[in-house]
Amino acid sequence: MNLLEERIKKDGYILNENIIKVDSFLNHQLDIKFLSELSEEIYQYFKGRNINKILTIEASGIALATVLSQKFDYIPVVFAKKQKNKNIGDEVYQSLVKSFTTDKEYTVTVSKRFLNEDDNLLIIDDFLAEGNALKGLIDVANQAGSKISGVSVAVEKGFQDGGKIIRAMGYDLLSLAIIKNIDNEEFNF
Amino acid sequence: MNLLEERIKKDGYILNENIIKVDSFLNHQLDIKFLSELSEEIYQYFKGRNINKILTIEASGIALATVLSQKFDYIPVVFAKKQKNKNIGDEVYQSLVKSFTTDKEYTVTVSKRFLNEDDNLLIIDDFLAEGNALKGLIDVANQAGSKISGVSVAVEKGFQDGGKIIRAMGYDLLSLAIIKNIDNEEFNF
Repeated sequence: MNLLEERIKKDGYILNENIIKVDSFLNHQLDIKFLSELSEEIYQYFKGRNINKILTIEASGIALATVLSQKFDYIPVVFAKKQKNKNIGDEVYQSLVKSFTTDKEYTVTVSKRFLNEDDNLLIIDDFLAEGNALKGLIDVANQAGSKISGVSVAVEKGFQDGGKIIRAMGYDLLSLAIIKNIDNEEFNF
Repeated sequence: MNLLEERIKKDGYILNENIIKVDSFLNHQLDIKFLSELSEEIYQYFKGRNINKILTIEASGIALATVLSQKFDYIPVVFAKKQKNKNIGDEVYQSLVKSFTTDKEYTVTVSKRFLNEDDNLLIIDDFLAEGNALKGLIDVANQAGSKISGVSVAVEKGFQDGGKIIRAMGYDLLSLAIIKNIDNEEFNF
């Protein structure tokens, strides 16, 4: 088992409806040292590809993107907003997304000032289930004409289709832990 | 002028209705190196107070809290959620808050597993306008019986009442930049 798999086995647990909770270190309480160690794995995999910007989505992708930026010599992080408020302006890229976790629709929004055709992106998120958030981020990146050199998530739920979909779209996807299935309240990687 | 004031003067701008935009480095695109420099100022002010946890709120407080955790030898960060989804469970502290930016009400929610009476908190956010988000965070911290050793924000809008309110409540509030007023599209500190 790798670093993240061990941590999931130790501190993760399973809620009803196959919701995997890793909120003691990844997406409610944050273990920044651990996230920094995870980001080193992402950096080692994607370094040397001239990536100049990290694109993620609020809120749980931000901490991992922040420590990953440090590995890449402090390239900018852009986080997409899940709701368009009155202050972001009209010059935005947008993509409509359905959340697996909350079952609601939301709009992935990025200001046009922060993505353009000169950007070479690494797209980051905490979780990959059905891939909807990532598809939304890929969509706005494509609208901007940005290059996407890689996609990385902490936890991929291998028993849902997101990973398959993103790879079939041709993207180089690095998942730090892939949960193949959950059996008797145990995680199998 | 200090570090943040200079950056606001250089890269900030004013939207209608006195909304101050610093989205090129603080709350949409993130300049992580700059945030790390800001966090050093916060660390120097609050070090030596036995702070063991940073409490912030999604989404824009997370990056600053992340780099600040590194200064404090990687103490945990807890970020409050703005909406209660079905997966956070029922064991939560909650506080109802009205957003100045969006004019909507939302609920500040933190799982009871991540705040308790042994915690000594530093509360962090990106912006302070009317102080509603901070009051929500203070409320959940008080519900948990946690000690609050300090409160810090990047930008305080000094022409609104938030700073006065938080200080009148007796909290040690460090604002890295206080915008006294905006005159002729210029920021005055």
